[in-house]
Amino acid sequence: MSTGGHSQALLALSMGDAAGIGPEIVVRALAGGQAGRCIVVGSAEVMRQAVQQTGLLLPVALLQSPDDGAPPGCLPVWQPPGLPTGLAALVPGQVQAEAGRAAACCIEAAARLALAGTVAGIVTAPIHKEALAASGVHFPGHTEMLQALAGGGPVRMMLANEQLRVVLVTIHVALRRAIDLLDFDGVLQTLRIVQASARQLGVVRPRIAVAGLNPHAGEGGLFGDEERLFIAPAIAAAVAEGIDARGPFAPDTVFMRARHAPPDHPGEFDVVVAMTHDHGLIPVKYLGVEQGVNVTLGLPFVRTSPDHGTAFDIAGRGIADARSFEAALRMARQLAAA
Amino acid sequence: MSTGGHSQALLALSMGDAAGIGPEIVVRALAGGQAGRCIVVGSAEVMRQAVQQTGLLLPVALLQSPDDGAPPGCLPVWQPPGLPTGLAALVPGQVQAEAGRAAACCIEAAARLALAGTVAGIVTAPIHKEALAASGVHFPGHTEMLQALAGGGPVRMMLANEQLRVVLVTIHVALRRAIDLLDFDGVLQTLRIVQASARQLGVVRPRIAVAGLNPHAGEGGLFGDEERLFIAPAIAAAVAEGIDARGPFAPDTVFMRARHAPPDHPGEFDVVVAMTHDHGLIPVKYLGVEQGVNVTLGLPFVRTSPDHGTAFDIAGRGIADARSFEAALRMARQLAAA
Repeated sequence: MSTGGHSQALLALSMGDAAGIGPEIVVRALAGGQAGRCIVVGSAEVMRQAVQQTGLLLPVALLQSPDDGAPPGCLPVWQPPGLPTGLAALVPGQVQAEAGRAAACCIEAAARLALAGTVAGIVTAPIHKEALAASGVHFPGHTEMLQALAGGGPVRMMLANEQLRVVLVTIHVALRRAIDLLDFDGVLQTLRIVQASARQLGVVRPRIAVAGLNPHAGEGGLFGDEERLFIAPAIAAAVAEGIDARGPFAPDTVFMRARHAPPDHPGEFDVVVAMTHDHGLIPVKYLGVEQGVNVTLGLPFVRTSPDHGTAFDIAGRGIADARSFEAALRMARQLAAA
Repeated sequence: MSTGGHSQALLALSMGDAAGIGPEIVVRALAGGQAGRCIVVGSAEVMRQAVQQTGLLLPVALLQSPDDGAPPGCLPVWQPPGLPTGLAALVPGQVQAEAGRAAACCIEAAARLALAGTVAGIVTAPIHKEALAASGVHFPGHTEMLQALAGGGPVRMMLANEQLRVVLVTIHVALRRAIDLLDFDGVLQTLRIVQASARQLGVVRPRIAVAGLNPHAGEGGLFGDEERLFIAPAIAAAVAEGIDARGPFAPDTVFMRARHAPPDHPGEFDVVVAMTHDHGLIPVKYLGVEQGVNVTLGLPFVRTSPDHGTAFDIAGRGIADARSFEAALRMARQLAAA
């Protein structure tokens, strides 16, 4: 429930790509004073610029050490070793190698703070894959980068909003390739990771629904046999381990059944495991991305992020919507307290 | 706008599988007196039994000819030639060949009335695929059966509710096979069918969004090349024909963008074309199936149906929810008047 003698866990917020909306949504999320104990892992000059863009009054307090206390009403920024300088000169909304290098430096530093126990979790502002690649860092995104920093163990992406939680078995690959990659081990491992994250989800034994891959979950083999060959067997293996896994269910109705909108529509399940990126993300995003949070399950620390990208088209104008980032911060706070 | 000298088009309602909830939802939909000019193509004894199950007061009027007028406050039933007798003895909630045979007889008769212009459209109550197969009729469902009766031209399934309209390029096949079946012609043909149905959709030139197949619509080829190889070219070909087709868009956000919930969230598109069964049906069903309507586009007559099955688990008890069937009836009325 706490780190050290403090009443609340400390969270690290990585600033993201400095040419995107990351710095300004971090400012907005912290400006209200409701965010609790946080430090921004980022560049002081970039954060000062973001404060100006938003028009908010929030002086930047440069921390000498990540666990230094900051004066109330300030934006506490810790600059990690090796962070490039001159970042305030970056052009908003453009892919720039220096922005990618800085973003990667902040993510890595935040992850190391979490691994060392200095912070209880990290919330990552959006990065741009091409900027990351231009700086020589070849990860498709945060999830894969954090997985590598944490030792390479299996992780899964969970997307959650107030009505629905979805965990994905496969993510950023062609649909045809995703089908090739699916197997018994991948499904069972996903179910184990969800169960291991149960405390973080706020339930001791989550009711996990597994969506099938094919229309009508294969209709008894008529529309595909992945359900019969390995999805159902993986569910059975998980059940034998004490996991409350059910299915496979028809993909087109299982998300509707899990949607939790009490009192009229209490969800039948706590989380849905989806075989593919879009089976899972279509329903999570359907009612809007403002409240969506991305959680990485399986890491040895808490990690959340907003459910959107760098929004280069509006970056630098101080008009970005911080709701998803704020939801990510609230979720990290809850998970860290679990 | 009308058939013959009547002020409103006549619609035919096929009773569906007599052991399912079809007959009782037909009764409920007609009991309110708001349904307009309809005839039930079905069995008088089955419909009388359904009236008893619902506890409603609605005498069955047996029509000698499908275009006979029925007394007000009655349930007008026309029994097609060749309909089996003794259907009231069927066991509710069970697969029975005789129920499949009767259902097929009613569908075929209703379709012939529509092809002859006697009725302006048909609304089909749910059938059971296994009962149909047991009676020797080997169609996966209504859509394929009606397509064959109408001469075999290309048709597409559209699912619609108050917020979203989705048209599917592929339907009841394994996901892997669906990917194999997708091609330039299938996508372009879908776009042409949607455009040809524009008047029925109530818009002259519908704004058609095309969802990609792969995560992020392929992310420039990194996550799959179907978008580049044939989806984008099919869209370009449709645009060259004057069709307002756009995309391909990332599947995980295009349905959110199309969701029409004014005034806060007006939809950006009138209809979304989805490559697979579940990409399209997950969002349509997410908020509940009560208002969902299935429309067959491409037939020479109007055809709608509810977005659910025979519900054998509750059949015969008079408790089935008729809202989706009522929505299908309203939609058929609108389409027939267009």
